[in-house]
Amino acid sequence: MTIHPIDVIQHKRDGLVLSDAEIQGFIRALVERESTVSPSPGAPTESQTAALLMAIFLRGLNPRELAALTQAMRYSGETLDTSSLNTFTVDKHSTGGVGDKTSLLIAPIVAAAGLKDPMISGRSLGHTGGTLDKLETIPGFRTQLALLEFLAILQKCGFAMAGQTPTLVPADRILYALRDHTGTVESPYLITASIMSKKLAAGLNALVLDVKTGSGAFISRTADAQLLARLMVETGERAGTRTVALLTSMDQPLGRFVGNWVEVQECLELFQHFSPGCAFTLPPEKLRLSADLLALTHALAGHMLCLGGKAATPEAGAILSAQLLANGSAYRHFLQMVALQTSDPKKSVTLSEVTRRVPHSSQSDRDEWDANHKSSGEFPYLAAFANPAAFHKPAATHTLTADRAGFLSAMDCKQVGWAVQRLGAGRTHPGAPVSAHAGIEMHAKLGDRIAVGQPLATLFTEDPALLDEPEAMLRETLEISAAPPPPIPLIREIITKDQLG
Amino acid sequence: MTIHPIDVIQHKRDGLVLSDAEIQGFIRALVERESTVSPSPGAPTESQTAALLMAIFLRGLNPRELAALTQAMRYSGETLDTSSLNTFTVDKHSTGGVGDKTSLLIAPIVAAAGLKDPMISGRSLGHTGGTLDKLETIPGFRTQLALLEFLAILQKCGFAMAGQTPTLVPADRILYALRDHTGTVESPYLITASIMSKKLAAGLNALVLDVKTGSGAFISRTADAQLLARLMVETGERAGTRTVALLTSMDQPLGRFVGNWVEVQECLELFQHFSPGCAFTLPPEKLRLSADLLALTHALAGHMLCLGGKAATPEAGAILSAQLLANGSAYRHFLQMVALQTSDPKKSVTLSEVTRRVPHSSQSDRDEWDANHKSSGEFPYLAAFANPAAFHKPAATHTLTADRAGFLSAMDCKQVGWAVQRLGAGRTHPGAPVSAHAGIEMHAKLGDRIAVGQPLATLFTEDPALLDEPEAMLRETLEISAAPPPPIPLIREIITKDQLG
Repeated sequence: MTIHPIDVIQHKRDGLVLSDAEIQGFIRALVERESTVSPSPGAPTESQTAALLMAIFLRGLNPRELAALTQAMRYSGETLDTSSLNTFTVDKHSTGGVGDKTSLLIAPIVAAAGLKDPMISGRSLGHTGGTLDKLETIPGFRTQLALLEFLAILQKCGFAMAGQTPTLVPADRILYALRDHTGTVESPYLITASIMSKKLAAGLNALVLDVKTGSGAFISRTADAQLLARLMVETGERAGTRTVALLTSMDQPLGRFVGNWVEVQECLELFQHFSPGCAFTLPPEKLRLSADLLALTHALAGHMLCLGGKAATPEAGAILSAQLLANGSAYRHFLQMVALQTSDPKKSVTLSEVTRRVPHSSQSDRDEWDANHKSSGEFPYLAAFANPAAFHKPAATHTLTADRAGFLSAMDCKQVGWAVQRLGAGRTHPGAPVSAHAGIEMHAKLGDRIAVGQPLATLFTEDPALLDEPEAMLRETLEISAAPPPPIPLIREIITKDQLG
Repeated sequence: MTIHPIDVIQHKRDGLVLSDAEIQGFIRALVERESTVSPSPGAPTESQTAALLMAIFLRGLNPRELAALTQAMRYSGETLDTSSLNTFTVDKHSTGGVGDKTSLLIAPIVAAAGLKDPMISGRSLGHTGGTLDKLETIPGFRTQLALLEFLAILQKCGFAMAGQTPTLVPADRILYALRDHTGTVESPYLITASIMSKKLAAGLNALVLDVKTGSGAFISRTADAQLLARLMVETGERAGTRTVALLTSMDQPLGRFVGNWVEVQECLELFQHFSPGCAFTLPPEKLRLSADLLALTHALAGHMLCLGGKAATPEAGAILSAQLLANGSAYRHFLQMVALQTSDPKKSVTLSEVTRRVPHSSQSDRDEWDANHKSSGEFPYLAAFANPAAFHKPAATHTLTADRAGFLSAMDCKQVGWAVQRLGAGRTHPGAPVSAHAGIEMHAKLGDRIAVGQPLATLFTEDPALLDEPEAMLRETLEISAAPPPPIPLIREIITKDQLG
């Protein structure tokens, strides 16, 4: 059946329900038009696609239409075939936060539990950080993997962390560029189709969504975040992927650091602090600042482990998650993944050789391994991992102190994110480089009692000229009051299939 | 101030009120982009314009935004400067009908009253006829006039009837093509801006709108037509043009004929029937079939004459209109306009010479004039005007008769319009030629008592192969019932500034 784009536009415009054939036909013709030299004459033009996007923005999609759009986009290009792994695959996705490095902890934890996490991540966007930008500060780390290598690494160590490939979900690339250009980005329906098509194309059995709310989230209103969470859960479940969403607070940076390398550093220090064989301990006043990061990590991983059958309840899953961090097996998996993703696939080092040489958890093992490989230069990340704090070498540092006593009572977390991006951690336009060592270290959390002159945050940058504006932004947004603020729960709501009614 | 298209889109998308500067900036940059070799980099793209059109379609425009959009479009190109005429200018616009040839009668009537009507008309669209297509069946008639010639003819005989020039309202041409392509045609806001920008660019002091409702109208629902009428009246008044809208019935063809030449013929026969000097009389059974056409003509012209200060009330204006038809002065003006618009402006015949030679209303004058000019071939229309019915030479004719007795009780007037277009009177794609002599003659009106075998309609075509489908369409849609249908008032409602509240 031939689909006429104008009919599809008019039906959605008039509030009618689009058929699966209309949605599939439109998306198929759209992708064909971009990818073939002689597209069919009835293929939708950019203007027609823009009109449909705006009609969807304003009219919405019912659950069936949303599922059809998501599936049409999911299958618009290559998909990851994880069925050959014969293992339960599970992933986590966040709608974007400030200092949110849970992916770096969660993926190795669920891999350590025996599940597979094919994690396809994104880059810094606006005031939020990007997992790929953080990982790329690890010397030699490759985030662009061919699908086959991605699958091999996933098979080998239980997870892989890479960027979108051009062959996966081309419809989303086309639609996202047009949404960005035509003011149709912030639709919960279009956001759901974009996120879920990419996640489903990775062939997941289960997905846990971290939908951020609060001042640092893209969607600050709780009601909007709830709608988005419900749409994503329903869409995932309709596609046969068990899906749970957690609405979580993004009212202050998650954990201690915000930036690129410093976020890897925070994770490495936590891994090493908790791993039995590592002779490294975080002082309590620093560990305390990562408490929310650890709590969210275990909550999200707990749901993933529960969905994957490794725990009877999400709460039991959270306990298992903490155990996998504390017994060093999560760190071991992380190191294995980094070894695989920093080795040159063109060199003769086979995957099995790399795996054999992956550091064990005891310090003596690591020392031996370090000695073997540092000289060969094969694994340039090892020096960085041996002392993550020492590897952090910003050109300039400035510590902001409190000019009055009281309680750290409020901040616009989005402003904190922008301050970090302006220190050099973010990009002004797509494709621009980001600074590895720009960022901030928070010395206090909301509700902390503050003395005059107490450090609130330290700013790092690779370009000293970039210090002033972010410092002023932070100074303006960090509020100190006489009374402590009411506590904000980290996890506001959990949305599962059962609540969709 | 620079306007960013994406901001304008997002504001309208979110239901905010656009500022005059935003609307003007968007339209100005859009027209510039189309007309200059190096448009400014921030000019709206087609996709952005499509997104804005859909946002306007679904969000609407408040009266101030609609006025700003209309004015921005009105002034997007050249405008007709009628101030030099030092006369009240008034026009009529219809939203499109079947057999609606009121323009051919009204413009000469208001000119005969001493007002000026700069009438810029359109072509056949969908199931409706177009004044330009009808006029072009007059041998030698030119509808494409340069603005200066248009003004000269308007000055000379009080009205001119021509098509849109490329320099008038270029924004509407750009937007209309995009609306047609993106499913955003049927918005009362966008329709209002399109119609009113073109009408206002003609520099009108007053405008009377004939908003069609019923089965033959583009907008069949009365509530939709009411909204459109109110929007157009408010927009006209805000621009300083006195504006009145009549909601009129389009439930059956207006008058006796539907087509191109046959509609000119109907008008010529009415002019000649009523003009004192003409030795031509319509038989009562034919005149009766034009009664609704005459009633609507005088009602619309009555409002125009009232707005133009030629009558104290619209009702007095309608009486004056009938008088100007009955004393031959309307016909005299019509003939003068045709003489001007059929003369070759490149020949040495000056406008004043043409005017001098325009036929007077008495038969002897006409005969003398005919004799002078027929031979010279300068005015090839004269033979056609001398006997309009004889000039009508379709290749094939077929008369549909009633197969049962009763009352003509209902029809889908849109189907009647489509039947006429398929006889050859309409075009399948823009720019295609239309048949001059295709059309239908209705022999009965809704409510007429019908005997078995009585003629209902005669079909005319220039291609006999085109007869069958339209005949079947007419046969199917003309319903004969045992009981007479309830009468439908020709004029359902009059909307003036005072009713906007």
